[in-house]
Amino acid sequence: MTIEEITTRICAFRDARDWMQFHNPKELAVAITAEAGELLQHFVWQQPGQIEQRAKEKLPEITDEMADVAILLFELAHNLGVDLGQAMLAKVERNETRYPVAKAKGSNAKYNEL
Amino acid sequence: MTIEEITTRICAFRDARDWMQFHNPKELAVAITAEAGELLQHFVWQQPGQIEQRAKEKLPEITDEMADVAILLFELAHNLGVDLGQAMLAKVERNETRYPVAKAKGSNAKYNEL
Amino acid sequence: MTIEEITTRICAFRDARDWMQFHNPKELAVAITAEAGELLQHFVWQQPGQIEQRAKEKLPEITDEMADVAILLFELAHNLGVDLGQAMLAKVERNETRYPVAKAKGSNAKYNEL
Amino acid sequence: MTIEEITTRICAFRDARDWMQFHNPKELAVAITAEAGELLQHFVWQQPGQIEQRAKEKLPEITDEMADVAILLFELAHNLGVDLGQAMLAKVERNETRYPVAKAKGSNAKYNEL
Repeated sequence: MTIEEITTRICAFRDARDWMQFHNPKELAVAITAEAGELLQHFVWQQPGQIEQRAKEKLPEITDEMADVAILLFELAHNLGVDLGQAMLAKVERNETRYPVAKAKGSNAKYNEL
Repeated sequence: MTIEEITTRICAFRDARDWMQFHNPKELAVAITAEAGELLQHFVWQQPGQIEQRAKEKLPEITDEMADVAILLFELAHNLGVDLGQAMLAKVERNETRYPVAKAKGSNAKYNEL
Repeated sequence: MTIEEITTRICAFRDARDWMQFHNPKELAVAITAEAGELLQHFVWQQPGQIEQRAKEKLPEITDEMADVAILLFELAHNLGVDLGQAMLAKVERNETRYPVAKAKGSNAKYNEL
Repeated sequence: MTIEEITTRICAFRDARDWMQFHNPKELAVAITAEAGELLQHFVWQQPGQIEQRAKEKLPEITDEMADVAILLFELAHNLGVDLGQAMLAKVERNETRYPVAKAKGSNAKYNEL
């Protein structure tokens, strides 16, 4: 499925409800952060050995939160005239320069700490 | 561009660096929330009349943060075996039931407060 | 009430349950962010003219979230050996330099944009 | 140091700059979440064995972020007429009921999963 197809569906849903008036970039950023917080909530206090099991048990809720974040993000990109897919590929390419395999392999250091 | 194509690229980048060891679902949720916070940071204290201008001035940075959140989200969905596109459409459909046009048009109330 | 008195109470609660093992600085930062997200959740999509009313209606829930964030924050500061009150006053003092009244009065610009 | 003393200082700083106009409860909640995200940022991708070392290396920055969150939180509580210290103690007391020592000792389960 393409990002464009899903975005079209999201915008049709929004416009049928006349919600663009509430969806300025700040409000969308606020909603994205709040939904990301709900995603994170499922993992609070979980120890390394419990995480995979947790993710399995809460998969429907986690899927729901991921969908919420992604829906808001696709709409924000669209509203700002940003091609999200291109932006993602451009970022992966930048990360390829920032994190050359020879230096970054097996390391969790940030590019400016490598 | 399809979600699958971009996800393939993200996973190739990750695997070339042997980073799957750091990317359990909790760590990805932590990173998503931290990046969402960076997106939000651009709008802190901005008043309604300043937001569109702000979004324009900071568009490269905002695009970068959106890409970061989306990259992590696509990977998380993939790692959990979730079809993110299907999950998003399923959520839009659920929202169509939760927010019927007749009740939700022009309202910013939550479905349980409509 | 002093920060120290409340912190003593928080640590006694934690230690009676043998929870220090779960409370490393990262886990506390994760929990703080997740609770901040719950606080924010009460204001998502709320328009300027609705916010004061919203805060009144949800005051018990909002108070609860503020308490959650503050409890975790007091513990984190204590665990790191930081005097939170002194750190807060030091930050206010730094902000007095960063935001001189003559330049910052009535402005919501960041210090590096003043 | 008491919460009240520090809050008085924070409000004097704000009022000298005529910033109350920007500090409605939603804006404060947005700023708290964004600052919590900055705190979390210091721990992204950090593995269990690296966290204490990380906290030590980044202590000045972490202290700064904790102070930022706390300053905003103290002001929010004050603006809403909430006695934050009392709210915190009330929450600790509720948690004592929710997490009885006999059941909660050594467990990281949520109260509704105990």
